[in-house]
Amino acid sequence: MPEPTGQSSLRGPVEVIGTGLLGTSIALALRAVGVDVLLSDVSSEHLRTASGLGAGRVRRPEDRPQLVVVAVPPDHLGEAITGALAASDAVVTDVGSVKSAPLAAVRELPGAGRYVGSHPMAGSEQSGPLAASATLFDGRPWAVTPHAGADVAAVELVEELVRACGATLVLLTPEEHDRAVARTSHVPHLLASLVAARLAEAPENHLALSGQGVRDVTRVAAGDPALYSQIVSGNADAVLALLGEVRAQLDDVMAAVGAGDRDGLRTVLERGVAGTRAIPGKHGGPPRAMASVWVQVPDHPGELARLFADAVASEVNIEDVRIDHDPGRPVGLVEVVVDEGRAEHLRTSLESRGWTTQR
Amino acid sequence: MPEPTGQSSLRGPVEVIGTGLLGTSIALALRAVGVDVLLSDVSSEHLRTASGLGAGRVRRPEDRPQLVVVAVPPDHLGEAITGALAASDAVVTDVGSVKSAPLAAVRELPGAGRYVGSHPMAGSEQSGPLAASATLFDGRPWAVTPHAGADVAAVELVEELVRACGATLVLLTPEEHDRAVARTSHVPHLLASLVAARLAEAPENHLALSGQGVRDVTRVAAGDPALYSQIVSGNADAVLALLGEVRAQLDDVMAAVGAGDRDGLRTVLERGVAGTRAIPGKHGGPPRAMASVWVQVPDHPGELARLFADAVASEVNIEDVRIDHDPGRPVGLVEVVVDEGRAEHLRTSLESRGWTTQR
Repeated sequence: MPEPTGQSSLRGPVEVIGTGLLGTSIALALRAVGVDVLLSDVSSEHLRTASGLGAGRVRRPEDRPQLVVVAVPPDHLGEAITGALAASDAVVTDVGSVKSAPLAAVRELPGAGRYVGSHPMAGSEQSGPLAASATLFDGRPWAVTPHAGADVAAVELVEELVRACGATLVLLTPEEHDRAVARTSHVPHLLASLVAARLAEAPENHLALSGQGVRDVTRVAAGDPALYSQIVSGNADAVLALLGEVRAQLDDVMAAVGAGDRDGLRTVLERGVAGTRAIPGKHGGPPRAMASVWVQVPDHPGELARLFADAVASEVNIEDVRIDHDPGRPVGLVEVVVDEGRAEHLRTSLESRGWTTQR
Repeated sequence: MPEPTGQSSLRGPVEVIGTGLLGTSIALALRAVGVDVLLSDVSSEHLRTASGLGAGRVRRPEDRPQLVVVAVPPDHLGEAITGALAASDAVVTDVGSVKSAPLAAVRELPGAGRYVGSHPMAGSEQSGPLAASATLFDGRPWAVTPHAGADVAAVELVEELVRACGATLVLLTPEEHDRAVARTSHVPHLLASLVAARLAEAPENHLALSGQGVRDVTRVAAGDPALYSQIVSGNADAVLALLGEVRAQLDDVMAAVGAGDRDGLRTVLERGVAGTRAIPGKHGGPPRAMASVWVQVPDHPGELARLFADAVASEVNIEDVRIDHDPGRPVGLVEVVVDEGRAEHLRTSLESRGWTTQR
């Protein structure tokens, strides 16, 4: 079996641009495993705080990072990624909540192959470096979203960043990622805000009946409105499609409640129960048995990206991708690691799309 | 100052009809403070389980309860309360999630004065006696909702039940209670179900990005669909009014996202933040300073109920009501205990409604 070659192992230094909650937490996590971290921020106050917390040292002009992590607010992502690609030949990733929009700004640039987007599914209602923690990403999903032109070595380096932070790697195309977070993050946030807004209008003595349920439903709605309006606006198409579905089903609920149609109401509630059961176990659930699917990949540009897109389109959680870099062979072997129970499905799906797999 | 007379102190035995999660938990809480508990259930299996857990002994025909707690599913409440009122001269309460509907079935019966509705804001996604706990109500809000014809001694006895279970008393009229739970419980549950239903339709690899946020938003949606369709249907008017507000604001959100109107989106999100801040601290928050407002009440039927309704309409959280029972006086004094910062508001509000307060 081919082994990962380790050509792109994370040695550092890693530059973190933006020392807010996420950036500082990444820096702390990297420092905890001995990686050298360089910090940059337009806010000298955040920079001082992060540095004082032991997150790294302030970047000097002569520093040469191996990897740059852009952790700035959504509106500044495109600009910061572009700047980082031009400033050095380092691999560049970002941790923004939406992946298609920043990519559009970067895709045609020289050096775009060194950019690989990512998105850790961690955070809190708090913000700023003082809320940061080296363990923020422990066991949390962290999406890595290579575009079709991404360099293989760049993808692998960003995967190593994810592992170094203790997170669980989830590979998705940028477009699939944006549809996924609309469903698992942006629409839940908006609906939580609509529920919470009703509380803002309530008589004080009514709110005395608030139990744990309404606290849970509305917790995320405490997040920064300026930040979330940026995030949601940056993913408008995917969000609108799902909100349309919510609105149609809300009409069904109102019709059922108005007509005393309990069966209709129960059907919606049962669908909700099914949804809660579809969420994977917290922290990825118990360890599962994994299996590898080996695929022959012609050794020329674009083929790996095409394999990756086809694997993602098979709707299988891809736990890992390892690539045989042996330059002496015209055909490479790529190992795609998935849940044991899904391996056969992936193999069949890839073969139906014209790939040759090895058994 | 008048003191509570203790005429109606909770001695027991207390009969619990319905040994599901709530009934068995109440029974366990009462046993823990030494009150004798009698158990009744149409399910002999639940009855055996609850009794085996130490929740009390099975009721015999010759038993004479002081208080009956009806803890049966919503559809059977009216019937069970009516039966309990006819079966003895005990005070009767229930723990149903909606208060106006069961009251309508009871209000005109002989002995209706012995019925005082209540509703503990506690539970879980689980059900049945095996999920029960003596500490389920610790620090949780528990609404007591006297109707205009309720006996004062009956109200006080149900208040003692709430305290004996370790819960925090919240006094509301039945109608205000139903509007309050539509806002703090039923509408949050329905919206959580709509969010969760979207997950049921998601590709498996998209759900790998589920973080703590979507888990929190959808947790309550795991509740029993049959039970919640009963609860919501029993509170249709209040639920529909709020769902109409949600729908109008959802349209605003969709218009703002579609038009790239971030300010419009931010306005909704800010309203949500305000709502999360309006929820009182968990478990009622830190101990607060209380103050008493003393009100002169003519000693004839209906006056106390009128005072109570006026106090509730003042939108102040009423922490306690103590009544001077001295039968020798034509005018009684009623002590209404509220948050220190709200006492002056309540005093002014009651005076404006024609009551005489003492300073």
